[in-house]
Amino acid sequence: MTDDAANRPKARTPRGFQDRRADALTAERAILTAVSRVYESYGFEHLDTGAFEYADALGKFLPDADRPNEGVFALRDDDEQWMALRYDLTAPLARFVAEHSEGLPKPFRRYAYGPVWRNEKPGPGRYREFIQCDADTVGSDRPEADAEIIAMAVAGYAAAGLPRSAYALRINNRKLLNGLLTAAGVTDPGQKLAVLRAVDKLDRLGIAGVTALLGAGRKDESGAFTPGARIASGAIDSVLAFVQAGCATRAETLDRLSRVIGGSAEGDEGLEELARIGAALANLGVGEDQALFEPAVVRGLEYYTGAVFEAEILLEIVGDHGEPMRFGSIGGGGRYDDLVARFTGQRTPATGFSFGVSRLAAALAASGVAAKRARGPVVILALDTSLMGDYMAMAGELRDAGIAAEVYLGASGMRAQMKYADRRLSPAAVIVGGDEIAAGAVTIKDLDLGRALASQVSDNQAWRADRPGQFTAPRSELVAKVRAILEADG
Amino acid sequence: MTDDAANRPKARTPRGFQDRRADALTAERAILTAVSRVYESYGFEHLDTGAFEYADALGKFLPDADRPNEGVFALRDDDEQWMALRYDLTAPLARFVAEHSEGLPKPFRRYAYGPVWRNEKPGPGRYREFIQCDADTVGSDRPEADAEIIAMAVAGYAAAGLPRSAYALRINNRKLLNGLLTAAGVTDPGQKLAVLRAVDKLDRLGIAGVTALLGAGRKDESGAFTPGARIASGAIDSVLAFVQAGCATRAETLDRLSRVIGGSAEGDEGLEELARIGAALANLGVGEDQALFEPAVVRGLEYYTGAVFEAEILLEIVGDHGEPMRFGSIGGGGRYDDLVARFTGQRTPATGFSFGVSRLAAALAASGVAAKRARGPVVILALDTSLMGDYMAMAGELRDAGIAAEVYLGASGMRAQMKYADRRLSPAAVIVGGDEIAAGAVTIKDLDLGRALASQVSDNQAWRADRPGQFTAPRSELVAKVRAILEADG
Repeated sequence: MTDDAANRPKARTPRGFQDRRADALTAERAILTAVSRVYESYGFEHLDTGAFEYADALGKFLPDADRPNEGVFALRDDDEQWMALRYDLTAPLARFVAEHSEGLPKPFRRYAYGPVWRNEKPGPGRYREFIQCDADTVGSDRPEADAEIIAMAVAGYAAAGLPRSAYALRINNRKLLNGLLTAAGVTDPGQKLAVLRAVDKLDRLGIAGVTALLGAGRKDESGAFTPGARIASGAIDSVLAFVQAGCATRAETLDRLSRVIGGSAEGDEGLEELARIGAALANLGVGEDQALFEPAVVRGLEYYTGAVFEAEILLEIVGDHGEPMRFGSIGGGGRYDDLVARFTGQRTPATGFSFGVSRLAAALAASGVAAKRARGPVVILALDTSLMGDYMAMAGELRDAGIAAEVYLGASGMRAQMKYADRRLSPAAVIVGGDEIAAGAVTIKDLDLGRALASQVSDNQAWRADRPGQFTAPRSELVAKVRAILEADG
Repeated sequence: MTDDAANRPKARTPRGFQDRRADALTAERAILTAVSRVYESYGFEHLDTGAFEYADALGKFLPDADRPNEGVFALRDDDEQWMALRYDLTAPLARFVAEHSEGLPKPFRRYAYGPVWRNEKPGPGRYREFIQCDADTVGSDRPEADAEIIAMAVAGYAAAGLPRSAYALRINNRKLLNGLLTAAGVTDPGQKLAVLRAVDKLDRLGIAGVTALLGAGRKDESGAFTPGARIASGAIDSVLAFVQAGCATRAETLDRLSRVIGGSAEGDEGLEELARIGAALANLGVGEDQALFEPAVVRGLEYYTGAVFEAEILLEIVGDHGEPMRFGSIGGGGRYDDLVARFTGQRTPATGFSFGVSRLAAALAASGVAAKRARGPVVILALDTSLMGDYMAMAGELRDAGIAAEVYLGASGMRAQMKYADRRLSPAAVIVGGDEIAAGAVTIKDLDLGRALASQVSDNQAWRADRPGQFTAPRSELVAKVRAILEADG
């Protein structure tokens, strides 16, 4: 160990990573526990794959492959093979199913949660490591499998405590627009992709902007020009009618869509699938207005092959300067029938949903249903080191009674010890010196009460003389008195 | 997507990594939940740092730095800084404390769990990614802080369900042997390290082997020669008396040690610390024979500075070929007072314990106290697709009653569906076709009973005709009948 300050490393969190403390972790754990229970009640089994996959196995199936700078954290193993940290939980699932296909029940239903890593440019609230929590059914092409995934998402949000009114779950099917375009004579893959990209911007640009992007192109306020899809005007009308077909119930939207779509096998297939998803959702008790069909939902351009789902926060959230903030998606998924085929050559139908755990936690906090702030333990002050044995025994008694407790083990005096208890958000401090021992007593300070009273008293001296919330009780009543404080605090 | 089989990636788990399924994960989750609760009851707060640290911040403080091939997974970030995946949870804690020192309560008590990564040569049961679960107190040099860490380890093993007789928790203090060597005139750092290495081999080589390694050196059966520490014969006698001073209670061992150690300030300090740890353990209710002082424990040569702790399985475990297996450590820790100083230049006393979660899970399984095997859901067979709505509704009813259930969503016939339910380890299958619907009935098959009866019947035909455990009930009694099966299965 060197004493040379210049040679010391600087302690710093790596760029784009974060340290998370008890409050955030308690909220996250509550979500994962609630959602896992829902997944298990639907018959999904827990699976955990490692952090790494071989880079060739991850492939290019990034959900947002058309974004630049999208990347993975990759390194070369001793044996020269490239490995990369997983960027989602779906690519490892596809690899797992392809590798173990013979031994797995079919369909294979699994859930998984854990960190994923993206080697992207970090920004405010945008981290390079975050937690996903997914459920997928591999090996079923039934629309009922999609419906179950949607019903689980709805049940998961409810179990996590998100009010039904706080979010919208929107469902679409990639085949509808594909079919519509085929029927309208748009068959060029580049044009089709441009149409999808235009539709994806409906939220931001409105109908006029999308219309321009479907046609010749659009110049934005800065003067920058985005070339359009250049589809025929009849096709533009069809697309616009399509993206505006969303209604307040699934049944109404289906009815409207059946009038817009039609004339292509793929479009009819998409309609039939949506209808069966709707019927299954009704049988699963998912209300007509709880999970809606929304033709304007695009999601993951090169990834999904049929139904797509997206959950978005409806709450109005304002930023630090009062400006309205787009909260964005708190989860999504869909049907991806080609992912396992990359390995096996055999098409394997699959569908799944991924909860954005940190966004959901933020949404819960914004909805006022966040988990309570993590509380500290009861702190037993260490005023007289010769009494350490008594302090340890008191802490043990409290713990045995199910009350988190600790003895202060630093080297500071009473003021610092009280400050420590305050920093820990402790409900109570136990203060015992020689006098208390001699009298067979304990002094207990109700710190919440103390904090509340102190905030009403401007004169620091008066407060200190008063010692609000502090009282003495027989040693034998330690546990009972502390418990009473905890119960009063709720 | 290519159809060219030659271009397809091969689906394979990266070398040294593993896919874990429900049974392993259920056991792991039970341990983490139980141990976290213990940590919280002792006033430790949850902290989660990211997977990466800057390589210079990780430094060379690997617990086993003297093993070759020990390494980390490292890569270079866009900004040219080297980052590495954490190899334990202590180095990130040291970085966190150094970075946020001002804002933290002191002492800072945190627990953490999650994967760590080691870029080592993998082997059977030896993975490059595994789960640790740690608690550390930073900022207290009191031996009582060590005692609390030990008491928590004992409480953690108990909470996880490990019988007290299944393991031994052994405590030592690095200062004892250091002091003894100083008093015996051994001051050369290289010689001291050689002594520690020799003592560390007591388990494997016995007293004779250690004696040779303390002296001129030792030739093993293969003829390979290990040079010895070459300390004086009086010093050898002292070291041998020291490593054999362990007794059946802490008090006896302390008594013996006080006769072996002495004559050096560091040795006396070590004795005093052990005595205070012993007193605090007694006050915390940790039995004399539950956590023992054991002078032969070495643990992590270049890492710990004072007290060290190690938990080892005592169960006799035999391998596949009946050979006795060394199970090894299921956890350990100690005092490391120099880790934060790497960043700050200021000595920061710290002590902690790390549970080896997968080894503990294996130990629990070997002790017969593993979590029950993860059960599958009740499977509702899909015999008639036109009845899918009824099947979905039945699954929903069962879930609403708290019973995990799913509708079979594959494309196979009845036999395959029953096989699927069997593979999932489902407790029951629900069999409903047009006849049942017309009769307002459901057929239920108790699969555990069926499996039990089938194992007694050799004639497959007879069993199939018999349909053991299968019965029909009114549709309205679905939930009640399934519940009765689950309750009978325990």
